[in-house]
Amino acid sequence: MLEVNQTYTHEFSFSQSDVEVFAKVSGDTNPLHLDAEFAAKTIFRKPIIHGFLGGSVFSKILGTQFPGEGSIYLKQSMEFLQPMFVEVVYEAIFTVLEILPKSSARIETKIIDKETQKVVTTGEAVVMNRQLIPKV
Amino acid sequence: MLEVNQTYTHEFSFSQSDVEVFAKVSGDTNPLHLDAEFAAKTIFRKPIIHGFLGGSVFSKILGTQFPGEGSIYLKQSMEFLQPMFVEVVYEAIFTVLEILPKSSARIETKIIDKETQKVVTTGEAVVMNRQLIPKV
Repeated sequence: MLEVNQTYTHEFSFSQSDVEVFAKVSGDTNPLHLDAEFAAKTIFRKPIIHGFLGGSVFSKILGTQFPGEGSIYLKQSMEFLQPMFVEVVYEAIFTVLEILPKSSARIETKIIDKETQKVVTTGEAVVMNRQLIPKV
Repeated sequence: MLEVNQTYTHEFSFSQSDVEVFAKVSGDTNPLHLDAEFAAKTIFRKPIIHGFLGGSVFSKILGTQFPGEGSIYLKQSMEFLQPMFVEVVYEAIFTVLEILPKSSARIETKIIDKETQKVVTTGEAVVMNRQLIPKV
């Protein structure tokens, strides 16, 4: 059962092929993510991962590991502080901030660059899970 | 150039095959999205679309149509008010709330069920686009 202050971490990275699959399924073909020549002319100098693909690690972990299977997503906020790149190792860090009514919880969701320890994405989630979050 | 109160709408729907592709690329294999038998025992009765897949329409439109190519995502919040299902026609509705410094804008992002007109997802985005958002 989830408790306030409980944390969970998860290491991950994405490939350019993941970015292409995400571009196709979402329809977000912004050249910033796909076209090295276009990206070279931007402040990032090379293609960046879609914010929604990076942030999907929150969906993955909340829905399969912490709290886990059967979680129902109620809210997610994301602030994209730094660009994310393919083949870089990131760590997603989850901290339970509050247990809410109806077996739900407010959870801080953060992504850091594992090597530089820089925070690249911050946000908060609210999920409901009748099996894995206590009723208050 | 984007203006306050300007709106943009976009009709879309997802297939179960899109849900499977998204599950694979994100790693979110929550059975609520993939397993009809599991989903049958939940309040939804049938598999629902990942909130992040539904919400990815915001990424698609902001990055390719409104304001368009080259947009840089700074923030996105999402409140998942109602489940989303495959093969249902939805409409994403965007309204410019505020033009912010550095060629960025705060935009209301909403998804409605086209038939019932029920709001299924709400939220706000902040995007930067030096070509398509005026400097204030």
